[in-house]
Amino acid sequence: MAAPSFETLIYAVEDGIATITLNRPDKLNAFTARMMKELIEVFDITDADDAVRVVIVTGAGRAFCAGADLSAGGATFDRTSPQAIEREEGKVGDVYRDGGGRVVLRMYESLKPIIAAVNGPAVGVGVTMQLPMDIRLASTDAKFGFVFARRGITPEACSSWFLPRLVGMQTALEWCFTGRVFGAQEAKERGLVRSLHAPDELLPAARALAREIADNTAPVSVALSRQLLWRMAGADHPMEAHKADSRAIQSRGAAGDAREGVSSFLEKRAPVYPDRVSADLPDIWPEWGEHPFR
Amino acid sequence: MAAPSFETLIYAVEDGIATITLNRPDKLNAFTARMMKELIEVFDITDADDAVRVVIVTGAGRAFCAGADLSAGGATFDRTSPQAIEREEGKVGDVYRDGGGRVVLRMYESLKPIIAAVNGPAVGVGVTMQLPMDIRLASTDAKFGFVFARRGITPEACSSWFLPRLVGMQTALEWCFTGRVFGAQEAKERGLVRSLHAPDELLPAARALAREIADNTAPVSVALSRQLLWRMAGADHPMEAHKADSRAIQSRGAAGDAREGVSSFLEKRAPVYPDRVSADLPDIWPEWGEHPFR
Amino acid sequence: MAAPSFETLIYAVEDGIATITLNRPDKLNAFTARMMKELIEVFDITDADDAVRVVIVTGAGRAFCAGADLSAGGATFDRTSPQAIEREEGKVGDVYRDGGGRVVLRMYESLKPIIAAVNGPAVGVGVTMQLPMDIRLASTDAKFGFVFARRGITPEACSSWFLPRLVGMQTALEWCFTGRVFGAQEAKERGLVRSLHAPDELLPAARALAREIADNTAPVSVALSRQLLWRMAGADHPMEAHKADSRAIQSRGAAGDAREGVSSFLEKRAPVYPDRVSADLPDIWPEWGEHPFR
Repeated sequence: MAAPSFETLIYAVEDGIATITLNRPDKLNAFTARMMKELIEVFDITDADDAVRVVIVTGAGRAFCAGADLSAGGATFDRTSPQAIEREEGKVGDVYRDGGGRVVLRMYESLKPIIAAVNGPAVGVGVTMQLPMDIRLASTDAKFGFVFARRGITPEACSSWFLPRLVGMQTALEWCFTGRVFGAQEAKERGLVRSLHAPDELLPAARALAREIADNTAPVSVALSRQLLWRMAGADHPMEAHKADSRAIQSRGAAGDAREGVSSFLEKRAPVYPDRVSADLPDIWPEWGEHPFR
Repeated sequence: MAAPSFETLIYAVEDGIATITLNRPDKLNAFTARMMKELIEVFDITDADDAVRVVIVTGAGRAFCAGADLSAGGATFDRTSPQAIEREEGKVGDVYRDGGGRVVLRMYESLKPIIAAVNGPAVGVGVTMQLPMDIRLASTDAKFGFVFARRGITPEACSSWFLPRLVGMQTALEWCFTGRVFGAQEAKERGLVRSLHAPDELLPAARALAREIADNTAPVSVALSRQLLWRMAGADHPMEAHKADSRAIQSRGAAGDAREGVSSFLEKRAPVYPDRVSADLPDIWPEWGEHPFR
Repeated sequence: MAAPSFETLIYAVEDGIATITLNRPDKLNAFTARMMKELIEVFDITDADDAVRVVIVTGAGRAFCAGADLSAGGATFDRTSPQAIEREEGKVGDVYRDGGGRVVLRMYESLKPIIAAVNGPAVGVGVTMQLPMDIRLASTDAKFGFVFARRGITPEACSSWFLPRLVGMQTALEWCFTGRVFGAQEAKERGLVRSLHAPDELLPAARALAREIADNTAPVSVALSRQLLWRMAGADHPMEAHKADSRAIQSRGAAGDAREGVSSFLEKRAPVYPDRVSADLPDIWPEWGEHPFR
């Protein structure tokens, strides 16, 4: 596979780990329409490439992502402005759609785990884009802010759906109502980030966690686990999980991965899983493969 | 606007903050049918008044609210008793409805943030009425109890929906199964309250948090944030948030508030938001404005 | 009622508390098709017996439950194998169904609170079967693992629905992605277990909590509280709770339990509740009694 090339991202795969680096360091990696399109595209690449087991997302330079690029000034969020229309921003067909939301809905469908390595400030879409990433590690230098109400706009990127599921309603409401920028320690205490690290130790810690996944687990199992957990987070009744579980166990229980997983465990040796995400993902959801939400 | 007058509440607005004080101090602010009606009415007033940015709810005297008024003794919860019928309690049209639930469904729809300043004991409906309030600050003297199973009745005021979203299933189940009265420290550790304060510092702390919201954020943004977060807390799929987000960003991104929010930020000055909740709330939900749930 | 007899369980009722002990200690209480059927059956017994107020589940010997019995080796999870078909495992009518899921869906419908006393290792279905139990107490010797991705299979027993509601999405994803086995301390810090106890003090602590429920609360109130909380954990809107609450308060408010609950409280004496789960459970759900999900 030819190395894909991006304008706003650096993309590298090494030893099963894809690293996506937001790469507009002179603009604190501010989010643009171009970055939106490239982020959607890069997760198509990681999903399709069996050499990618885990995805890490981080930022170049001192910031993770400072939010929307405000260089258009007061017209920044005006999707009906001539500039926005020229950038083909916002509209899909006849419908205006939130760009941050298009990115997070793509991440929500990712078949590979996504680890955020939050190296510095992450505000606005810079933090809401992290919410569908599965696990957030942060530098002690990181800062966060759901600043939308201070800019006269509203929380986007489906953050109203994701944030309460990560930190509970009380904290989600306080952060969105105040629009306050807060430090890494508060983010850790309230459950937004999983662990804090010295700046130099952040990427190594993210890679060690990625290794723990890549070295021990079956790729198809991980892809299905991800889909099961995210989809069931919003489901009304456990019966919805039971239907999917039953299809999954019928399919995967008879597969080579399950034979290898149990045999290698009983033989106390490292597993060599035969199945691949690109070829062996079973159809446990009726709508699987239609990408109905992107 | 003429100052509204209530029998069971004190209502005051000062500098953008409405304070609602449950005011039956000789009865530990026990909940009555009259208090139910007045609480529903007062949130119509705070929603309609653009001078109100944030609402604080507290109790007069030493209690927040001791729960249902038990002066009817063993017949207290009998909605079919002659006394209950005389008080026009419980029934709406032909359907019996839980009074606490009518109050919390009204609060759920509030367009202004609600901060609970829990000054003392809060049991039964005295605590379940707090759950749709957004942020709970408590005095170190506060006590809480989901005592329903000890009175032979059941958790009401939609607490089965709200409580797990605040403290997780394990704690919600334990509190409802035991009916135990517990202190402020346990309430803080398990996530029910956001912070504890010395009795004298409780209202000042609540007002400081209200000020942080009122002084920095756009009122329409805050009203929409509140609706987005509460509605999406129960939604199945982030696509539901994406639809609302997209309508919100299309509407608010082109509004005066967004121009002012970005311009004031870039100019490093305090914002002066032009838009008002009473006039400028966009229609981001198909059923908006029908108050279908009250 | 004749004492029921099981092959894989020990069942005992004493002073209102039923204790279910997983009893294959030489196999670390590994889960089998037989255990699945007996677990479903035993909760029919606890539901029907008014002498049972609370259920405790624990393991015999040094483990709680080591997960699926792997004695069939690589074919363990193959539901289409001749051995599985001979054991009548997996299939219900024409549909393959996950056995762990059948157990947890039965527990989900339990009318009595379920307390897990996790005495030792609990991995795979050994931990996922605990998730619909209401409150988990653990020995400091306990270990946990959502090891599915290390066996080439997927999280089962509706754990994708239950786990995020107990520990949040970030922890749920990390545990399922890594398949890591972790200790009691991590389980406590992340919210999976409610409290840790020295091995000798685990069952006494579980019994003390069961006593707190049994000695103070009305059985019908507890049964309804359990159903309200679990069902509303997945509901879209608090209006769903309001409908059920209103039916419950109309029914229970006029019942003997409510009269006794309030009177005993006002008279400062221990309550003697007249109503029984087997006879007095009101129909607050349209589908109540159909057991539609088992």
